[in-house]
Amino acid sequence: MNSSIVRYILGHILKIEGLLLLLPCLTALIYKETEGFVYLAVAILCLLLGLLVTLKKPKNFVFYQKEGCIATALSWIIMSIFGCLPFIFTKEIPSFVDALFETVSGFTTTGGSILSDVEALSHCSILWRSFTHWIGGMGVLVFLLAIIPMSGGSHINLMRAESTGASVGKLVPKIKYTARILYLIYIGMSLLQFILLIAGNMPVFDAINTTFATAGTGGFGIKNSSMAGYSAYIQWVTTIFMILFGVSFNTYYYLLYRNIKKALDSEEVKCYFLIIAVAIAIIFFEILDTTAGIWDALTQSSFQVASIITTTGFSTVDFNLWPETAKLVLLTLMFIGACAGSTGGGMKVSRVILLVKTVVRELNSYIHPKSIKKIRVDKKSVEHEVSRTINVFLITLCLLCVISVFAISFDQKDFITNFTAVAACINNIGPGFELVGPTQNFSFFSPFAKYVLIFDMLAGRLELFPMLLLFHPAIWKSVLTQRFGKKAQH
Amino acid sequence: MNSSIVRYILGHILKIEGLLLLLPCLTALIYKETEGFVYLAVAILCLLLGLLVTLKKPKNFVFYQKEGCIATALSWIIMSIFGCLPFIFTKEIPSFVDALFETVSGFTTTGGSILSDVEALSHCSILWRSFTHWIGGMGVLVFLLAIIPMSGGSHINLMRAESTGASVGKLVPKIKYTARILYLIYIGMSLLQFILLIAGNMPVFDAINTTFATAGTGGFGIKNSSMAGYSAYIQWVTTIFMILFGVSFNTYYYLLYRNIKKALDSEEVKCYFLIIAVAIAIIFFEILDTTAGIWDALTQSSFQVASIITTTGFSTVDFNLWPETAKLVLLTLMFIGACAGSTGGGMKVSRVILLVKTVVRELNSYIHPKSIKKIRVDKKSVEHEVSRTINVFLITLCLLCVISVFAISFDQKDFITNFTAVAACINNIGPGFELVGPTQNFSFFSPFAKYVLIFDMLAGRLELFPMLLLFHPAIWKSVLTQRFGKKAQH
Repeated sequence: MNSSIVRYILGHILKIEGLLLLLPCLTALIYKETEGFVYLAVAILCLLLGLLVTLKKPKNFVFYQKEGCIATALSWIIMSIFGCLPFIFTKEIPSFVDALFETVSGFTTTGGSILSDVEALSHCSILWRSFTHWIGGMGVLVFLLAIIPMSGGSHINLMRAESTGASVGKLVPKIKYTARILYLIYIGMSLLQFILLIAGNMPVFDAINTTFATAGTGGFGIKNSSMAGYSAYIQWVTTIFMILFGVSFNTYYYLLYRNIKKALDSEEVKCYFLIIAVAIAIIFFEILDTTAGIWDALTQSSFQVASIITTTGFSTVDFNLWPETAKLVLLTLMFIGACAGSTGGGMKVSRVILLVKTVVRELNSYIHPKSIKKIRVDKKSVEHEVSRTINVFLITLCLLCVISVFAISFDQKDFITNFTAVAACINNIGPGFELVGPTQNFSFFSPFAKYVLIFDMLAGRLELFPMLLLFHPAIWKSVLTQRFGKKAQH
Repeated sequence: MNSSIVRYILGHILKIEGLLLLLPCLTALIYKETEGFVYLAVAILCLLLGLLVTLKKPKNFVFYQKEGCIATALSWIIMSIFGCLPFIFTKEIPSFVDALFETVSGFTTTGGSILSDVEALSHCSILWRSFTHWIGGMGVLVFLLAIIPMSGGSHINLMRAESTGASVGKLVPKIKYTARILYLIYIGMSLLQFILLIAGNMPVFDAINTTFATAGTGGFGIKNSSMAGYSAYIQWVTTIFMILFGVSFNTYYYLLYRNIKKALDSEEVKCYFLIIAVAIAIIFFEILDTTAGIWDALTQSSFQVASIITTTGFSTVDFNLWPETAKLVLLTLMFIGACAGSTGGGMKVSRVILLVKTVVRELNSYIHPKSIKKIRVDKKSVEHEVSRTINVFLITLCLLCVISVFAISFDQKDFITNFTAVAACINNIGPGFELVGPTQNFSFFSPFAKYVLIFDMLAGRLELFPMLLLFHPAIWKSVLTQRFGKKAQH
């Protein structure tokens, strides 16, 4: 394995994180908070370490899928470990595992918290917490690709490991420009939401944080009541932007270039909106009796459906108290998730479409055994390899869910808590039901269970395989031989 | 579609059912119960109808997978409808949907009941109820193949649709003899269990019923307390025979023919025993504090693990009250199920092995992208097609579970009840947790929910596709054109 390129990438990630940490420093300056010094210290630490590690350039820049996955997985772990340091040193979240949980939950855009009183945090910590969502939403490696010139090497492997969805297409031939276009759309849409929130008389600080959490489909609230305290206008703006950030960014690219036909022709996006409409309709009728009227029921059901399918995880109401079918709709949406190539998590609508089509094709094969029809999406036939990897994805997801639920069950919490905690973490949503419901938090879990959930969040964000690969003996073997095998040869 | 052969098979099934119904008649004679006349009347009805339908032989005996699946699905439905008539006419289960639920639960070897007081039934009804397990365990079409000479036609398609597991191997070149061997092993093992139970001073009637329910891995108890009232010896005999009936019958065939190496070399069987051992160990330690001692904990954990992994569903204890991890072990076992080619249900151990190997191979492909290694089971490489259908099986199972849980959620019962009710029906187990726990029953569900669960039980027993195929528009179209299209031509 080319481990020097992995080291080089990790160094760059540290440098970027150092720069990103300057934003909470600025916030501290504005609000005159002493916590800012901690952020500054950690920022300098990251920058220095990053510079040190990137001093020696790797001999060759070639890397393959394996290196791409490992670099991505390690980047996210390193980012989270350094990102949680300010929480510990400001003593706002003194325990390491709690601070790590909060940071991983931020970067992976999960939004599940261990804090029972968010409002007690300093402004700079609240901002850093929300900012991790925005960084994690589009991905820090995509950012790296957008700004740093890296000659040679197949960088598509980095992007592939970090981006969401089954297949990553380049919008333009050069990865660098694809990454830049994605970030420009991301920034543009975030700005638009910010302006619309400000127009609704939301305080600037709240609007920035809410935008960060919506754009990354993260879901950290900055109030203990999440979004319940804001006006219906602000809730509707958030609802709409959550849904928009759950759409594949390719759609916006096509829209920008006036390729309206291609933008509207995506089966995934159409299906995404259909699922949203059906889910809102079911929940609307289920909760109608218990709400203040039609408009209230519509606002609540739309907000919650948008929040869960896009895996954001904001809440305006304690949906844990909703009727059984409504809760089940939300649980299903948790697994379906948003569109591939968006900032949302979950399995992705495109995968669900393909899985359903696989079952239909199987049934057809019983009727016409000799006609082997390929599955078609967007009028193009799907490569056998794509279809196979999606099957494997589902199997892996099921296995990881089962193992995780087992691992955290030793805390002796009830099954719904365990199952929805794992579902909410693996799909990067945030709240689940019962003890991890929207009015609760994850603080009661044992440290071991928290580490399991941290792993699940990272695995879910990186679409399972990069994180699992870290446990593959071959990776360890190759690292160990490179370290010690070479020395032994000298 | 060759619908005349389907009709012909259905006729035979009715005749067989008529004959099988004579057993409860005999029981009624012994116990001098007037309910026997009802059974006799239904038996005669089945025989007459069967004769009528089979009067006209089909023109050609050729049928393919499609006809095999449809014939199997319809056979099971017809069998269940006629099989539930005695319950209705004796007024022991007056409601049609309840009687159908009970009969389908019997034939599919699920063992979930809608009766709160089993002991109130007449002897002949209790026996018929247990006997449906025994018939359904090995399968009535396999029985048909064993006794009725059907020249021509690819009967493997019938056997394939009814037998459990991913691939059905013929033990001997002729299907007829394979079917006979299977039934002889089945009868032999049942007799052995019966004798051992009698040796433990179990009443003959109880021993017959328990043997039927164990052999078919069904689980209908004949006491309201299921197996809790019997001695430890009887519980252990039942434990061991549940486990034995969950082993692939091919193993016994090889043992009979002294091919010990081949019998013991099966990865599936080894893995099956390993899972049982691990599950017993976990549960043993979890429940040790709450039981009367080591021996008691071992008896309880072994019995319950055997009962659930083989999808029998007997209980000696209310495992709904067990600690969370112990319950989770049972829930996982529900889906794993027994070995392929046994009388047990669930996904089957062989499928689970293949799914795990699929994930491992995927991870390996990241390390060595160019070496496309085939998955190997029992030292033979698995055909790509087998591996693909197993993936599709899992996808279909997941989808069917989600849709079913949704459908029954309108009753507004809690999630665990709904989820485990579906899991217990699809995997043909019987009891679930909470409201469908081992001390409860399924009677509280609405008729709609009961029909959904009836479908799930049948789908689970026939391994999903034959039942789903009944809903395929092409099947209806071909039947309708044959009926009305031809007439229109005249």
